[in-house]
Amino acid sequence: MRDLSGDHRWLSLNTATVRKQGALLDIVDACARNGIRAIDPWRDQVAAIGLDRAVRAVKDAHLELSGYCRGGMFPADPAHRAQVRDDNRRAVDEAHALGAPCLVLVVGGLPQHSRPGSAPSKDIRGAHAQVEDGIAELLEYARAAKLPLAIEPLHPMYAADRACVNTTRQALDICDRLDAARTGSLGVAIDVYHVWWDFELTAQIERAGRDRLLAFHVCDWLVPTTDMLNDRGMMGDGVVDIPRIRAAVEAQHFTGYVEVEIFSHRWWAMPIDDVIATCVARMKTVV
Amino acid sequence: MRDLSGDHRWLSLNTATVRKQGALLDIVDACARNGIRAIDPWRDQVAAIGLDRAVRAVKDAHLELSGYCRGGMFPADPAHRAQVRDDNRRAVDEAHALGAPCLVLVVGGLPQHSRPGSAPSKDIRGAHAQVEDGIAELLEYARAAKLPLAIEPLHPMYAADRACVNTTRQALDICDRLDAARTGSLGVAIDVYHVWWDFELTAQIERAGRDRLLAFHVCDWLVPTTDMLNDRGMMGDGVVDIPRIRAAVEAQHFTGYVEVEIFSHRWWAMPIDDVIATCVARMKTVV
Repeated sequence: MRDLSGDHRWLSLNTATVRKQGALLDIVDACARNGIRAIDPWRDQVAAIGLDRAVRAVKDAHLELSGYCRGGMFPADPAHRAQVRDDNRRAVDEAHALGAPCLVLVVGGLPQHSRPGSAPSKDIRGAHAQVEDGIAELLEYARAAKLPLAIEPLHPMYAADRACVNTTRQALDICDRLDAARTGSLGVAIDVYHVWWDFELTAQIERAGRDRLLAFHVCDWLVPTTDMLNDRGMMGDGVVDIPRIRAAVEAQHFTGYVEVEIFSHRWWAMPIDDVIATCVARMKTVV
Repeated sequence: MRDLSGDHRWLSLNTATVRKQGALLDIVDACARNGIRAIDPWRDQVAAIGLDRAVRAVKDAHLELSGYCRGGMFPADPAHRAQVRDDNRRAVDEAHALGAPCLVLVVGGLPQHSRPGSAPSKDIRGAHAQVEDGIAELLEYARAAKLPLAIEPLHPMYAADRACVNTTRQALDICDRLDAARTGSLGVAIDVYHVWWDFELTAQIERAGRDRLLAFHVCDWLVPTTDMLNDRGMMGDGVVDIPRIRAAVEAQHFTGYVEVEIFSHRWWAMPIDDVIATCVARMKTVV
């Protein structure tokens, strides 16, 4: 397990963590000021300034990417399926242009939430099937671009509206079926917020192994959690034993960035440099 | 699969559903008025009127029980472990006195939340171990009273503060270890709210089989859910395909009550007879 106490070289900032404090260029500047070496930007933040400008900004700041957020939202009714395919292909193209090591997939829940306007459905098993079909189709396109896809199992409280892949086991079952040869083109993004509760997390991280561990995200689970989406905690403020999970991931020889991703009204209200300084301090002490 | 459309004979009312509208005796009266044949009362409601009076009220109203809520909250620091044991034994005694077919176990999360006053811990694996040890110890006592224990896997969003058994697979793994002979003394309570999202729910219900399916609870998952504890939906108002899950349970020859358990500020604000009438109507149409 890496010693992170001395510096923050392995910290990547998911740009949603400070999305309310400024646009992508402001965030890139703040990273430069604070010695942050990597980011994981969101598509809407890239779109807001244009892809070419985002590519230049990342390059000029000598930033690496730890991922690109996000593809997915596969379940849809027939009228929205072309949108799903085209939208995800564009996400692959953008990730490739930005030099991301993977495209993070938030796979979507029921069609009416995954692709608004789709006919309402309660068929969660149908959503599971659409997710797998969608990943299978996108995988061909992503392989051509040499862009790995990282399925992010989301907390089960998001099953209806954000992602119906909710455990590491479930994500790895999909990987086994779609990439049995473990080519490295398909894997998982492990975010402690989503999976910390899982009794078989360690076993499933071992099952994933290095070639399927494509990203590692940290924040914390607060008790109480007052908002299901935007009350994630800063590392150390909650109940997650983050070092234990990082140890399991790094025992599989994961050597990538530890990415901080916090959706929080509280932290969005703080100055950007204060948030980043806190991330850095916590990375050295509680991650 | 049973046809529930003609009457509500298989409806049991979990008394928490109307806990703000009155005491246990008021709820028993309301059940009599509305032709409800069974309830699942909570310990605090029984304690408020005294066990003897509760036993008499249930008997006089010719009510059956579909369960008794609840034992559990096993994780604790050493100073609170005697409390855990004694408290759970009393729960078994009360369930037995009331004629409950099982004691529902909400197993507890981290010690500081499970047994307030316990030293804070982030050791979720330690909590898992304490839960299993606690169930093993209680099982001996419960067997002597011929009172089955029903482990209720709770939604993972409650892992820290209410229950760190969060999937049917996890609960059944415990059953396999503690009651390998499938004596009927240990099983699970399946509540659609907690498990609807699970990709392997059907397979795990099949694995449970009749002898481990001790209770079946219904309500619904709302999108959005505005309160993690008290915004559960009335059946039909959310996204859960309840008939599919009931079909899986009844395919295992489960013939018990379908218990309505709704924690909801919205429904707690309604007159008790209106709530019960709505439960009856929904039971006939969407369950």
